[in-house]
Amino acid sequence: MAFQEMGKAFVGFYYPAFAEDRAKLADVYTDQSCMTFEGAQFQGKQPIVDKLTSLPFKKVNHQITTVDSQPIIGVDDNQACCVMVTGQLKTDDDPPHSFHQTFVLRPANGSFVVANDIFRLALHN
Amino acid sequence: MAFQEMGKAFVGFYYPAFAEDRAKLADVYTDQSCMTFEGAQFQGKQPIVDKLTSLPFKKVNHQITTVDSQPIIGVDDNQACCVMVTGQLKTDDDPPHSFHQTFVLRPANGSFVVANDIFRLALHN
Repeated sequence: MAFQEMGKAFVGFYYPAFAEDRAKLADVYTDQSCMTFEGAQFQGKQPIVDKLTSLPFKKVNHQITTVDSQPIIGVDDNQACCVMVTGQLKTDDDPPHSFHQTFVLRPANGSFVVANDIFRLALHN
Repeated sequence: MAFQEMGKAFVGFYYPAFAEDRAKLADVYTDQSCMTFEGAQFQGKQPIVDKLTSLPFKKVNHQITTVDSQPIIGVDDNQACCVMVTGQLKTDDDPPHSFHQTFVLRPANGSFVVANDIFRLALHN
């Protein structure tokens, strides 16, 4: 299904770029983008990239478990896409942590931008 | 923040209704709604409700850990809302399982409907 491929393609770009150089992610956010990172809210390209680049680890690796993608029918000519990712991430020498992240992607200039980004570590206690 | 309240209000309706009588949830889905449940895809009110009501447990309880909500700027006059929920659920006499669920809510008739619903148990192996 096309939306599954789109979600996987986005994830295949996003997490390697995150690991290599978080500043590169500026390309996928706009001044309309909203990010919630562990409950803290950010809006706009610069505040989001400032947050991502200030995270206090040097090395980070995301291992993706699932990527589920859906069209948002009736938005952007059915081209908007909701993606939920689950996986595990490892920062520096810490043990792996489970995480989940939701993106809303919207078409822009022949590509896609992140309208919404919600990230949580999987902690229940 | 208004969107946080909206997400919490939705969650406060959805999971108790899920526990009490899943057939009631027909009210929040439309024929445009997409649901992905553990990787299986459904579209439309009836297929979604059929899936939910056929889940093979009798008792279910969701304990919510986090609810993060954001406006989708530029959609539905900024009234569309992306919600990511994490929590634990307990079915019948099984041990609790962590889950995460994403909803896209859109305004309709003075209330909201679920445009997108993605559910996953937190399993990484």
